[in-house]
Amino acid sequence: MKDEGSSLQAYAIGVDVGGTKIHAGIVNGQGDVLHSVNLPTLAGQRSVPDRITEAIEALMAGAPRPEGGYPIEGIGIGTAGQVDHSDGGIRFASDILPGYTGAPLKRIIEERFGLPVYVDNDVNVLVLTEKTLGTGRGAGHMLCIALGTGVGGAVFADGKLVHGAWGGAGELGHLSVDFNGLPCVCGGVGCLEQYASGTGIAKRMQAKLHSLGIEPVSQVDSRETLSRWQSGDPVAAEVMDETFAALGAAITSLVHTLNPEVVVIGGGVAEAGEPFLERVREETAKRCMKSFMDSVRIVQAHQGNFSGMIGAALQVFEPVKKLDP
Amino acid sequence: MKDEGSSLQAYAIGVDVGGTKIHAGIVNGQGDVLHSVNLPTLAGQRSVPDRITEAIEALMAGAPRPEGGYPIEGIGIGTAGQVDHSDGGIRFASDILPGYTGAPLKRIIEERFGLPVYVDNDVNVLVLTEKTLGTGRGAGHMLCIALGTGVGGAVFADGKLVHGAWGGAGELGHLSVDFNGLPCVCGGVGCLEQYASGTGIAKRMQAKLHSLGIEPVSQVDSRETLSRWQSGDPVAAEVMDETFAALGAAITSLVHTLNPEVVVIGGGVAEAGEPFLERVREETAKRCMKSFMDSVRIVQAHQGNFSGMIGAALQVFEPVKKLDP
Repeated sequence: MKDEGSSLQAYAIGVDVGGTKIHAGIVNGQGDVLHSVNLPTLAGQRSVPDRITEAIEALMAGAPRPEGGYPIEGIGIGTAGQVDHSDGGIRFASDILPGYTGAPLKRIIEERFGLPVYVDNDVNVLVLTEKTLGTGRGAGHMLCIALGTGVGGAVFADGKLVHGAWGGAGELGHLSVDFNGLPCVCGGVGCLEQYASGTGIAKRMQAKLHSLGIEPVSQVDSRETLSRWQSGDPVAAEVMDETFAALGAAITSLVHTLNPEVVVIGGGVAEAGEPFLERVREETAKRCMKSFMDSVRIVQAHQGNFSGMIGAALQVFEPVKKLDP
Repeated sequence: MKDEGSSLQAYAIGVDVGGTKIHAGIVNGQGDVLHSVNLPTLAGQRSVPDRITEAIEALMAGAPRPEGGYPIEGIGIGTAGQVDHSDGGIRFASDILPGYTGAPLKRIIEERFGLPVYVDNDVNVLVLTEKTLGTGRGAGHMLCIALGTGVGGAVFADGKLVHGAWGGAGELGHLSVDFNGLPCVCGGVGCLEQYASGTGIAKRMQAKLHSLGIEPVSQVDSRETLSRWQSGDPVAAEVMDETFAALGAAITSLVHTLNPEVVVIGGGVAEAGEPFLERVREETAKRCMKSFMDSVRIVQAHQGNFSGMIGAALQVFEPVKKLDP
């Protein structure tokens, strides 16, 4: 079990690596942020591991210096891209982070700072934020679905993150909700991402407007679609009804597969909050076996800033991690 | 870690409880069966826990008696119905086993025999058979899909069965492969079971024959449909193409969610073996991200007799179980 006593005293460095910004912070085991910095990733211009190093150096240089200093237990990184869980290297990163694929990230940062380093996918680490600060606090079985530009996810079972064979588990945007459905950028068919990501919502809204003879306005993005949906626009309602049905089907599949206590929904698309969640719950309840539905809560993700950075840091305090070789 | 030394010497009693028969056997940690019996369940006429007790008594009465007797470490039961993993009771059983719902099975058998008793779903325990005797031997991340009258499943991650909040995990027949698809007996929409179970295949074949003006023959069950498919019948091919697409979509969803090393396909529907599996692999490869597909093997379930009974017994040797309260 986690040693609550020692994590009250100890700190970790958390780094959230995205396509445009890197956030770094000093965080304790309760998820409190003592100090933080952010700097542009400069993707394509500078090496990502170099920029991560610079973020950590800037963080430490500007940190308040109490008597006795900080007992920093380690560095946790949550990064965009596919992480190889066995060695903390970057298995694959898209063009959002050019040149990042193949970087032995864990090794580079460990050698530079001489501290234990933990690297995981940026969505996986969100589970740790939810477990510590979110509505799902204390749950041993939890799923996170992040509805952003794409759709990401994370699976938490028996009190730990499920990584799978090489760390790929949790690609929940690529659940197939229709085996004859829309083609996906991943090469798949009918992936959830086509129906429930910001990109997918905008694309289907524009197509719907076009099919109705309404000139597709390129400004009708997902934010605008959601806002029209909230004010009762029937075209937006039709597009969002399909989104909710697809989300309900995907969550049902996941709930039947993993029997979680909590499903956390986050990301920009879910910012509408309760009205959005209520429709998700409704479509899930329609499809899900009662015994499973009765034992699961569908809740919104923790709304504080720095969720990614905090989750990244919390890896350092995970007892299971410490048992890994 | 498992103590290979002690499980070489020790035995367990395994009991496989189905709607028509109960199989009981004495099994070692390698899955070898020393002795076994089976008796009719007499569902609806006799209490299921009583019949389990009688099966174990008959097993022990008829067992060969070597010098020194048997060191029996415990009793493992794999049973039809939903098992509450926290107390080993029967959370729900359908009309196949009337009166079984609510039975405190673990407690009853423990009190009767004074041995540790482990109870799990009959499909979940198959993972343990696969792990010990199957092609997936040694895999830490595995899924089992059983294509029978219905579709069942089991999830194995990081070297242990995933049970979820109360033990419901692994209901893989109720993954939704089409959010606008066929209604399911569970109340859901587009469940895999409607496309890939024996019942679902027979129903769709009969509907297809009917729609073509060919009088639906009630004898055209799933076995007949599969046999016609294998001999190149175009109507059966159309029905089975949909089955394979649905299976490919469901397996893709599971592989993206859990990143397993092995997916085991069992049950009567998969008895056609390689030609069947080859089509499943093909439809999965079409839909699955390459990085995930490259690291997973899709294989047939262990073909020996007594798979359920052996898996039931193997629960006793699971190191993780022994740490449970």
